[in-house]
Amino acid sequence: MNRAFNFSAGPAALPLPVLEAAAAGMTDWQGAGCGVLEMSHRGAAFSRIIAEAEADLRALTDLPAQYKILFLQGGATLQFSQLVMNLLDGGSADYLVTGTWSKKAYTEAARLAPQLGGTVRLAGEAVGGVVPREAMQLDPQARYIHLCSNETIHGIEVLDEAQLPECGDVPLVADMSSHILSRPMDFSRYGLVYAGAQKNIGPAGLTILFIREDLLGRAAAITPPLLDYATQAAHDSMLNTPPTFAIHIAALVLRWLREQGGLPAIAAQNAKKAALLYDTIDASGGFYRNTVAAACRSRMNVPFFLHDAGLDAEFLAGAAERGLQQLKGHKSVGGMRASLYNAVPLEAVRALCDYMQDFARRKG
Amino acid sequence: MNRAFNFSAGPAALPLPVLEAAAAGMTDWQGAGCGVLEMSHRGAAFSRIIAEAEADLRALTDLPAQYKILFLQGGATLQFSQLVMNLLDGGSADYLVTGTWSKKAYTEAARLAPQLGGTVRLAGEAVGGVVPREAMQLDPQARYIHLCSNETIHGIEVLDEAQLPECGDVPLVADMSSHILSRPMDFSRYGLVYAGAQKNIGPAGLTILFIREDLLGRAAAITPPLLDYATQAAHDSMLNTPPTFAIHIAALVLRWLREQGGLPAIAAQNAKKAALLYDTIDASGGFYRNTVAAACRSRMNVPFFLHDAGLDAEFLAGAAERGLQQLKGHKSVGGMRASLYNAVPLEAVRALCDYMQDFARRKG
Repeated sequence: MNRAFNFSAGPAALPLPVLEAAAAGMTDWQGAGCGVLEMSHRGAAFSRIIAEAEADLRALTDLPAQYKILFLQGGATLQFSQLVMNLLDGGSADYLVTGTWSKKAYTEAARLAPQLGGTVRLAGEAVGGVVPREAMQLDPQARYIHLCSNETIHGIEVLDEAQLPECGDVPLVADMSSHILSRPMDFSRYGLVYAGAQKNIGPAGLTILFIREDLLGRAAAITPPLLDYATQAAHDSMLNTPPTFAIHIAALVLRWLREQGGLPAIAAQNAKKAALLYDTIDASGGFYRNTVAAACRSRMNVPFFLHDAGLDAEFLAGAAERGLQQLKGHKSVGGMRASLYNAVPLEAVRALCDYMQDFARRKG
Repeated sequence: MNRAFNFSAGPAALPLPVLEAAAAGMTDWQGAGCGVLEMSHRGAAFSRIIAEAEADLRALTDLPAQYKILFLQGGATLQFSQLVMNLLDGGSADYLVTGTWSKKAYTEAARLAPQLGGTVRLAGEAVGGVVPREAMQLDPQARYIHLCSNETIHGIEVLDEAQLPECGDVPLVADMSSHILSRPMDFSRYGLVYAGAQKNIGPAGLTILFIREDLLGRAAAITPPLLDYATQAAHDSMLNTPPTFAIHIAALVLRWLREQGGLPAIAAQNAKKAALLYDTIDASGGFYRNTVAAACRSRMNVPFFLHDAGLDAEFLAGAAERGLQQLKGHKSVGGMRASLYNAVPLEAVRALCDYMQDFARRKG
């Protein structure tokens, strides 16, 4: 076994004990006589798995009782459409745009809303940071306000609740794909939260959704039953066969997270990892740079640029030689990106920082 | 390791070598430094996996060049909505109903079509068999004709191409979830074929779709981009992160299928398994019965009933003792059901038949 340090933005590193448990049970899960891949989703063994995943998710996030948890498919991209179908309800919605992902959500909502007899407003836009509260133009009649609380590509994170919009009675909807479970959050601030699982929760092909119960039952008539939150809630996410193995891996990740001490413990670890990398960038005398405003530098995704892009290929090749993988930045922004999700150990970040310092010394 | 004989209707038994290969590569797939669960879907290692899956699928099915293969999510249930959004195009569609699944497809199409300015017709209905050609009332102007070519719950299969509608220029659309890859088929007869993977292809959370290229680009304006076949085709099923691990398992299953000798070889094996079980039922002197017309008895899903339903619980308990699992019939029809997918070995069916004979002798 040759395990590299994996800085992929997603699908991303998973904890080794999770992978080992999944491998050990692949042909016979806990005496069931078959692996989880082969189990009926209606049987006792899988029922335990999904119940445990839900219970752990609820306990870890301290999710208030009036929220449902849904296990869905299609990633955040399908949610960009699905949440409009479910929540717009012939009205208007406000969108905050801070990077690629919130822009995609807004673009799809703006395309879809008129088809559903509604409208969408751009309530604020910012580059290199969150939208300042004073720059938000909020509609108090909006059906919801949407934001992406961690921009995976641009490395921008809502780090402080004072950065969230003052919503009043308007439900706040957040795409938390790339920082959910990275630290404790007050989910009672949100009406709906969704996250593609392939960062901090587990495998691609699973989407986790928290929804306040009073927001169920508002779907447009055209909504496919499988995409109607109320229908899925009524069927405990099993209107049809759910992605069973992905839920199994998520259940193992959630158990591992509990064993690490839950979100307070992982948050401390994540803060340490991020500080180490940002300090290395900031102390490089301009050899490396990150341009995000300090108050919203993501702890999960750290994009950085070499002072000379002509060195990028050599930097990446040298990193790969040391087992530091998936550091190439997203093609839309270039440069580098290190994703520091929960399963990325401190030693991986240390190895990356050592390499960065060494490379800068040699090339500076 | 304790492997039972698994007759689940889906998620269902997978070939042992597939599970072993997946387990062996879980923490490091072929020297990549990480497992497939942790890989970027845009990287070289996963690109090889999805390319191999597509090539094997194309070779195994002898799929004509003018068909695209899509790797989607949401199961057949999402297709019930999605295909209407993509193909109805303001017109009318014909549906044949032969059991639970084709009925669900029809019901959803009938609900959705008026929302999209189109209509849906029930072109024929049958109980306990396929719709006879002479009973089909086909609209030559239909946008498509839909059928379910293997009813998983009722055990009804289109076994002969003479049982298919005479479509003329109208595209034939089939839900093949539970018998795709069970034998060679002439896919040029179809405009679109879809299948949830969790029977003969691999894990739940993956849907395979074959579509003739001229049917792309007809989606209703409201269609979410992720659900638009043309958009997915243009992005090689990677508009966003696909269910990477599920595709990996499918790739392993497809390679295993090739190694078994492809569809002709597996078809011979499947015919033998089905014959053994139907013969046991028919020779039981009425102790067991299957009521499907002989010309369309499914080779994949064999529902059967004990002459006295009061013996059901005892039958199931005795089966479980012998390691014969998942034999309980679907709750909507009761009785028993044995699913005999590709990965179910002949010895499993022999063990089942031996048990059935023994049980009938003891209780008859």
